[in-house]
Amino acid sequence: VIQTSPDDTVGVVGGGQLGRMLGEAAGPLGIEVVVADPTPDAPAAPVVRDQLVGDFDDPETLRELAERADYLTYEIELADPGVLERVSEATDTPVHPHPDTLRTIEDKLVQKRRLAEAGVPVPEFRGVDSAAELRSACEELGYPAMLKARTGGYDGRGNVPVRSADELEDAFDAIDGPAMVEAFVDFERELAVMGCVGADDVDTFPVTETVHEAEILRETLAPARADEAVLERAREVARDVLEVMQGRGVFGIELFQGPDDEILLNEIAPRPHNSGHWTIEGCHTSQFAQHLRAVTGRPLGSTTQRAPTVSANVLGDVSERCPARLAGVEDVLAADRATLHWYGKREVYDLRKMGHFTLVGDSEEPLPALYDRARDLRDSLTFRED
Amino acid sequence: VIQTSPDDTVGVVGGGQLGRMLGEAAGPLGIEVVVADPTPDAPAAPVVRDQLVGDFDDPETLRELAERADYLTYEIELADPGVLERVSEATDTPVHPHPDTLRTIEDKLVQKRRLAEAGVPVPEFRGVDSAAELRSACEELGYPAMLKARTGGYDGRGNVPVRSADELEDAFDAIDGPAMVEAFVDFERELAVMGCVGADDVDTFPVTETVHEAEILRETLAPARADEAVLERAREVARDVLEVMQGRGVFGIELFQGPDDEILLNEIAPRPHNSGHWTIEGCHTSQFAQHLRAVTGRPLGSTTQRAPTVSANVLGDVSERCPARLAGVEDVLAADRATLHWYGKREVYDLRKMGHFTLVGDSEEPLPALYDRARDLRDSLTFRED
Repeated sequence: VIQTSPDDTVGVVGGGQLGRMLGEAAGPLGIEVVVADPTPDAPAAPVVRDQLVGDFDDPETLRELAERADYLTYEIELADPGVLERVSEATDTPVHPHPDTLRTIEDKLVQKRRLAEAGVPVPEFRGVDSAAELRSACEELGYPAMLKARTGGYDGRGNVPVRSADELEDAFDAIDGPAMVEAFVDFERELAVMGCVGADDVDTFPVTETVHEAEILRETLAPARADEAVLERAREVARDVLEVMQGRGVFGIELFQGPDDEILLNEIAPRPHNSGHWTIEGCHTSQFAQHLRAVTGRPLGSTTQRAPTVSANVLGDVSERCPARLAGVEDVLAADRATLHWYGKREVYDLRKMGHFTLVGDSEEPLPALYDRARDLRDSLTFRED
Repeated sequence: VIQTSPDDTVGVVGGGQLGRMLGEAAGPLGIEVVVADPTPDAPAAPVVRDQLVGDFDDPETLRELAERADYLTYEIELADPGVLERVSEATDTPVHPHPDTLRTIEDKLVQKRRLAEAGVPVPEFRGVDSAAELRSACEELGYPAMLKARTGGYDGRGNVPVRSADELEDAFDAIDGPAMVEAFVDFERELAVMGCVGADDVDTFPVTETVHEAEILRETLAPARADEAVLERAREVARDVLEVMQGRGVFGIELFQGPDDEILLNEIAPRPHNSGHWTIEGCHTSQFAQHLRAVTGRPLGSTTQRAPTVSANVLGDVSERCPARLAGVEDVLAADRATLHWYGKREVYDLRKMGHFTLVGDSEEPLPALYDRARDLRDSLTFRED
């Protein structure tokens, strides 16, 4: 029997915007959050009980985090599975999702192999350790192909398209380390499903459509503008992915809807994900509350969608790093059925994720109009001082 | 032009559940919160930047709070208007609502006089400073009447019903200080409106129906189960009340719907109020976000209601003060379209407000069914260890 009391603390490795939004979701559940992050006064710091300053893989920092917490989790793949496992054992503090899941996911080649073995549909791929291996892989997979660093990449960093044999050498040099190459998917659209593994149950949030530019997420649309058969197949694939995950928590599952409507897995994040931010306003339970419920063994909440919802990322648009002051934000605050989520980052640089906002539709403003309004509003914002 | 930056800090006098929910609402707006409260580790502490420990009227504590803040506000009427005014002037930190509003409201006799002068309909009332004055007032107003301490009362404390002349002496002794007496309103139902005064605009949230027992709020229903004419009159009275208030912020306006459907003002709170907690899930903007928007001069957000909503208070049900552990909370967490709001109080005593939960309805579960489900669920909770 769970009895809510203020003693329940979750230690989170990482204190960026995901840690901040976990912190914002924790209070109502009777959960306190402590984060560990190397950057002093990280985005999560003002909304949580405490921030420990230390590297994501620093054993002393994580030991202290574990000692202060009833449960450990992470909001960044740079968390070190070995260190997490050791401090978890030493302090008898459960860590969710399981460090083995993090091990599987943090290496994109291992991730794809494990999922393919489990029958999850993935684009064709090969591991490549040299330009020569890349050449022979591309001869099999065809051009264009997508070369990916096995570890450390995010928001498109570590991904290099290879459009022809002429680009092989430069592409491999750009990665400069263990890599994998994937057949390019000429997708109809990109979809994402936030899945959740709880103590006793598994659930998925409604399927979202994600719009990327230069491999960085710009907008999400919920529901996705796809046929019901496509949405059902996406949920099926998401459930198959969740079967492979060990431990509890929320998982961001990014998918391609291919040219023949087949669904292929793109990537997985073992944590709340940008494509699930819309759930804060769009569903009865947010992905952040759901993650905390799962990690602490509380029952999962309703994932039913409340209304058409679009969220738009506010990215840095400056050429040089500078103090973050956003012009136009009052228009977001004044917009009908709009909610701003500011991440509290003091400095902005090009394409840095600074915040997002969500618009909720109604019978008079269905999804297409909502999406247009969201883009117009977002495009009116700037960090530039002109 | 407002430009969001993490430098914007609101200092809140009081760190109870209202301070906690202000803290939970602040992050997304790019606002940091510091609270001042005499109880170490007050409910707001884990979710805000910092808590200063000091009395609500301690000039040094409030001075420090003002120095750390860009704006001052309060979540409790025990804040001292004189001290607030002096630290505001000394540090050039605006305080909202204006301390004069607090002065007017904190004395129930002054509050009623001021509102009556402004044409707001109120029950008949008299100031009474002795049992003899109470007797002559009751002879004019009739029995039963409600005797109220002029200051310091809340949740029914400081209110004593006078059913007949036999009870005059005991009633006055129970108050033991400056008092007022009001004609008893044999109300059809109680209503509440959260109003908000922003920098450039005034708005009201939808009219709520409040259900009290022993003068403590138990449930709120939105929308109220009253005719449109009654709701419109309630909004009118609320707007008239807001005209009297000085300074920006959210105001809880408690009303009676009398036997002939006339609307009478009961009481005002110059802050977010229990009868507005439902707005967190029920409206596009919560009363807490709205208060922070108003205090900082940001534009007000949409107050449109999203769906039928009921919230139910979780009150202490123990005879002696003891550590707070709530049995049955997992049923709330697992309930369909339910959101728990736990206040993080470590100890429970009889009728202490420990948390609330909100249920959101849909086309298949309209308000009456939702209300039944909320009461059943709330009645299944207990802090008693049986």
